[in-house]
Amino acid sequence: MLKKSFNNMKSTPTLIHNITNYVTVNDCANILLAAGSSPIMADEVDEAEDITTICTGLNINIGTLNKRTIPAMITAGKKANELSHPVILDPVGAGASSLRTSTAKKLTEEINFSVIKGNISEIKTLANVSTITKGVDANEDDLISDDNLDSSVKLAENYAKKINAIIVITGKTDIITDGEKTYLVKNGHEMMSSITGTGCMLSGLLAAYISAEKNNILDAAVTAVTAMGICGEIGYENLKKGDGNSTYRNKLIDAMYTLTAEKLEERANYELYKG
Amino acid sequence: MLKKSFNNMKSTPTLIHNITNYVTVNDCANILLAAGSSPIMADEVDEAEDITTICTGLNINIGTLNKRTIPAMITAGKKANELSHPVILDPVGAGASSLRTSTAKKLTEEINFSVIKGNISEIKTLANVSTITKGVDANEDDLISDDNLDSSVKLAENYAKKINAIIVITGKTDIITDGEKTYLVKNGHEMMSSITGTGCMLSGLLAAYISAEKNNILDAAVTAVTAMGICGEIGYENLKKGDGNSTYRNKLIDAMYTLTAEKLEERANYELYKG
Amino acid sequence: MLKKSFNNMKSTPTLIHNITNYVTVNDCANILLAAGSSPIMADEVDEAEDITTICTGLNINIGTLNKRTIPAMITAGKKANELSHPVILDPVGAGASSLRTSTAKKLTEEINFSVIKGNISEIKTLANVSTITKGVDANEDDLISDDNLDSSVKLAENYAKKINAIIVITGKTDIITDGEKTYLVKNGHEMMSSITGTGCMLSGLLAAYISAEKNNILDAAVTAVTAMGICGEIGYENLKKGDGNSTYRNKLIDAMYTLTAEKLEERANYELYKG
Repeated sequence: MLKKSFNNMKSTPTLIHNITNYVTVNDCANILLAAGSSPIMADEVDEAEDITTICTGLNINIGTLNKRTIPAMITAGKKANELSHPVILDPVGAGASSLRTSTAKKLTEEINFSVIKGNISEIKTLANVSTITKGVDANEDDLISDDNLDSSVKLAENYAKKINAIIVITGKTDIITDGEKTYLVKNGHEMMSSITGTGCMLSGLLAAYISAEKNNILDAAVTAVTAMGICGEIGYENLKKGDGNSTYRNKLIDAMYTLTAEKLEERANYELYKG
Repeated sequence: MLKKSFNNMKSTPTLIHNITNYVTVNDCANILLAAGSSPIMADEVDEAEDITTICTGLNINIGTLNKRTIPAMITAGKKANELSHPVILDPVGAGASSLRTSTAKKLTEEINFSVIKGNISEIKTLANVSTITKGVDANEDDLISDDNLDSSVKLAENYAKKINAIIVITGKTDIITDGEKTYLVKNGHEMMSSITGTGCMLSGLLAAYISAEKNNILDAAVTAVTAMGICGEIGYENLKKGDGNSTYRNKLIDAMYTLTAEKLEERANYELYKG
Repeated sequence: MLKKSFNNMKSTPTLIHNITNYVTVNDCANILLAAGSSPIMADEVDEAEDITTICTGLNINIGTLNKRTIPAMITAGKKANELSHPVILDPVGAGASSLRTSTAKKLTEEINFSVIKGNISEIKTLANVSTITKGVDANEDDLISDDNLDSSVKLAENYAKKINAIIVITGKTDIITDGEKTYLVKNGHEMMSSITGTGCMLSGLLAAYISAEKNNILDAAVTAVTAMGICGEIGYENLKKGDGNSTYRNKLIDAMYTLTAEKLEERANYELYKG
C-alpha cells in the first residue's frame, strides 16, 4: 500500500496551505517541495479563505501561537471543511500553556480534522487524559514503551473515535489509527530529536499525502509517517565524520527528495496492529 | 557590463532594509551577506523610517503578508523615496488572494519602485492582464515559452513604462526591461523551483545591486538576475549523489559567496533583446 | 573551569524560553539542541508566564522587534526574575532605531538580567555612551582593537556594575565581565560575520549554559562565549573548496554538536584580564 500512496503523492498536484510557526517554516516548505508537493504559507485572516480555496489541503500548527493568527486558523479550517479539503492539526506544545491547550481544544471543536498528530503528551492533553507537558517534547513519563504500548494505542483509538479523525502519535514507535484500524511504524532514528522541526515537517507531509489520496486517508497517513521515518534513517546513514545536527537536517530533507517507491517499500517497518 | 556591476556590488558598502516573509528570510539574509551586502530585517511601523534612513535600499516582499506590516511597508517606502533609496517590490502571490492583489496594487500607487520583480502571473495581476495565480508559483498557462515570449516582453515593457520602474519577470527565460531597453537572461536551472526562496533571494539581491549602482540600475538589475541564475547552475553542478533540495539551497548560496567577476562573465547567458 | 561548565551543560537538563526574531530563530533552536539544551519559542503575552515557568532560562532578543511581543518580553522577564531563572538580553540593533533603543532600555529597567550581550555599539547605546549604530553590525569606529581595548573593558565593567549583570561585548576579542572580574576570549573566526545569526545563537547558548550553572554564571558565560568561538573556527576548518557561508553555518552548528570538553579546553584562547 505504501508504494501506491507514494506514487499518488508524486503524480498528484497538491498545494498545501500552512498556518504554522516561524521556527521551522522554511524546513516545512522545503520538505513539501522535496516530497513533490507545493507549499503556501499564509496566516492573515483576511486572506485565509482565498488561500485555502486554491489549495488542496490545510496544515494548522500551533507552534509560536499568537492571538493574531487564531482567527485565520478557524476561518481557513471552516472553509477547508466546506470544500472537503483535508485539514491536519499539529497541537505543538498543547499542555505547555493554557493558551495552547485551550486553542488546540477550540480548534478541534470548530474544525473537522482529518488527522491530529502529536507526541503522546500533546494527544493526552487533547484527550483530557492526565499528563504534564514539558515544552514541545513529550514528557518522559509518557514515552511510549513496550510496557505502555497497549494503553497508548487504546488512548489513540478512543480519541480517534470520539473526534472522528485519524490520530497519529509520534515516538520511538509511531501509532496511526482511525479508531478501527491501527498501524504501528517503527522507522525513524533517535537523531531526529536533535533537530527542530521533524514533527512540523511530518504534519505538512500528512497534509500533502492525504490531499493526494482523499479516498484512502489512513493508508496515506501511514505512508507519510513511514516515509518521514525512513528519511530520518537515511539522513543518519549519510552523515560523515564531523557532521552534526545541522547537516543531518539537510540530509533528512535530501532523503525525501531522492526517496523512491522502491526504497520506501524495502525499508518500511510497519505493521497492522489491530483491525 | 556585468563585471562592472559585480565589482561595484563587491566594493560598495550596502545595507538593505528588508520587510519580508518569515519563510525565506534567513536565506535572504545569508545570500545578501554572500553577495557582499548586509541585511537588516525590520517590519514594525514605528521604526520603519529610522531603519530605512540608515540603509541604502529597501526590499518589500509580500509573502506571508499580514495587516500589521502593511503600514511599515508604506512608511518605509515613502521615506526611501524621499531619500532616493532604491525600492524593490516582490509581489509574492499577487492574484492568489484579494488581500495580496489589493495590497500589491496599493503599494505601487503609494511608492515609486525602482524594480518590480515577479513571475509572469504576478506581473499580469499587477498590470491588470487576465490570469489565474495558483499559489506562489506561476500559472502553467502563463509560463514563458518561445510561443509567448514576444507577448510577455510586450507586457513587461508596457507595464514598465506605465509604472516607471524596471520590470523583471522570472521564468525559464528572465525578462528585464525599463520599457525602452529589454534584456533576456537564460541562466538558471530547473532545480531552483525545488526550493523555497529563490525568488525572494533575487529580490534582496536586486535591492543590493541597484543600491550599489544607482546611476545605472538596468545594468545592475541584469547583473543581479544573471548572477542568481548562474548560482542556480553552479549549485546544481556541485551536487553529489544522494544530495537533494536542502543541500542544493546551501550550494546555491555558497555559489554566490564564491562567485567572481570572471566566472560571472564567462557563464553569463544574456542578450539585449530590444533597445 | 571550561571543562566543568561544559560538562554541567551536557549533563543538566535545560529548557530555554526564547522570545526572538524570525530571521535566525531556526539556527538558534538547532544550536541549543546541538549544545544539549532544548528550545521553546513563544512570544504571545498570554502564554509568556506559563512557558517561562516550565523553562530553566529566558532569552530575549529584539531583532525584528514588534510592538506585539514587547509585553510578552516584559511579562516573561518579570516571571523569570520571580522564579530566579536567568534572563539574557540581546539588544540587537539598539541604537539603529528609537524603538529598539527605548525598548532595550525599558527592558533593562523592568527586568533584572543575568547577562546583556551585544556588540560594542549596542552596549555603548545602552550605557549612554555616544555612538552611531549602523544596522545590526557594530559601527567601524567602535570596533575593539588593541588601541581601545582598555577603554572598552572599562565601559563594560562600569556598565556591569551599574546594571548588576554580566556584560558580554562580542568582537574580534570578546569581553566578559561582571564588573569585578573580566575575561577576554580570542577564539572565533572572521567568517562568523559572513552569516546571520552568530550573535543570536550565542545569546541562546548563554541562557542555556547559565541556567545549567546558576551558582557560577561568570564561568558559564565565559564557557559559552569560548565554545561559540571555537565552533566558528572548527566550522571554518571543515570547509572544502567551493563551500561558502551557507555551508559554513551548517558546519558551525555541527561543530557545537560534536564539541567535547577536551576539544574545548585544548582550543580555548581566553585570559583573566582583571580580577
